[in-house]
Amino acid sequence: MTEKLQKQMEFLTEADKMKTIFRQTLVMDKSRRENDAEHSWHFALMALTLAEYAASDEVDINRVLKMALLHDLIEIYAGDTFAYDSTGNTDKEAREQAAADKLFALLPPEQAKEFRSLWEEFDEMETPDALYAASIDRLQPLLSNFNTEGHTWVKYHITLSQIYKRMAPIKTAIPALWEFVEFVIRDSLEKGYIADGTTET
Amino acid sequence: MTEKLQKQMEFLTEADKMKTIFRQTLVMDKSRRENDAEHSWHFALMALTLAEYAASDEVDINRVLKMALLHDLIEIYAGDTFAYDSTGNTDKEAREQAAADKLFALLPPEQAKEFRSLWEEFDEMETPDALYAASIDRLQPLLSNFNTEGHTWVKYHITLSQIYKRMAPIKTAIPALWEFVEFVIRDSLEKGYIADGTTET
Repeated sequence: MTEKLQKQMEFLTEADKMKTIFRQTLVMDKSRRENDAEHSWHFALMALTLAEYAASDEVDINRVLKMALLHDLIEIYAGDTFAYDSTGNTDKEAREQAAADKLFALLPPEQAKEFRSLWEEFDEMETPDALYAASIDRLQPLLSNFNTEGHTWVKYHITLSQIYKRMAPIKTAIPALWEFVEFVIRDSLEKGYIADGTTET
Repeated sequence: MTEKLQKQMEFLTEADKMKTIFRQTLVMDKSRRENDAEHSWHFALMALTLAEYAASDEVDINRVLKMALLHDLIEIYAGDTFAYDSTGNTDKEAREQAAADKLFALLPPEQAKEFRSLWEEFDEMETPDALYAASIDRLQPLLSNFNTEGHTWVKYHITLSQIYKRMAPIKTAIPALWEFVEFVIRDSLEKGYIADGTTET
């Protein structure tokens, strides 16, 4: 076995830990929190199924699927930072860069470069592929929360304005989905899953 | 919201059930069995990482990734059939076709046809893409079992010849991995994770 293949197998073994990194969002049967491996699969499936709605003609769904598979791997070392945790998000970038140094070093150099570059592109949210991918990455927990009585939103008293801000990239990257997003948000507000913000202290 | 988008969202909601379909294989930390969503993600990541070793120049990794994402969705209705369960495998095809009828009907017709066609191609194991994909689908639990003291092999007294038969597609579709597969099998035999078959009754 070549040293290269050995490194790749070690990377793929280490990647199994994604199944033990738990997010705030629940699985829709409400039995437990979902993990990064499940989220990444669901994100990829959603990106594939909804590809026709990407606003930009330049979106290459094949690159987006790769981003979906790779985008959370660094959380094996950096942990999952809850999107609405302002404290956790202050040092998120430094933690994730250090995690990326450690994670991608497991791979042969060329592949490390390729995978890291896809992750960084995703993270910077500037290219059409990254904007579409980031939008789906936000849509996936919206769908989960909508189907679990707003679990995460209720638990952390997330407000309407926080959710609109978080979902905003969808409006430009996948405008055809915006009506659905607005329906989910309004319906969740009516059902009391989301705080309207007027009682914020 | 169009009827088409509504169908796609229902499909993506139903797909969440993949997180509750448990396989025989353990997560590598041995805490529990892994589910179909986690397996599909790990399969896709392995297919991507090891793509350079595909024997056929015709393998299109983009199609393989789609197969990986879709290949187990029918188990939402058909359940997971353990690879070494000869009884369960006698009616597997009929159960899975019925499940496919139900599952893909959730989607708009054109997309249903596209996704079902990818799943059927995978299942028939004839094209270069399907042979590469099926090989990775077998390699993934091999890696898991090797890292969990042969959990599934020990539990079900799986023999050397059964494992060689199950892994055989790798030998032709990804010959560069065969040395690794043989090492894992021989080492697992030495460690007592695999029965040598001579004590079979």
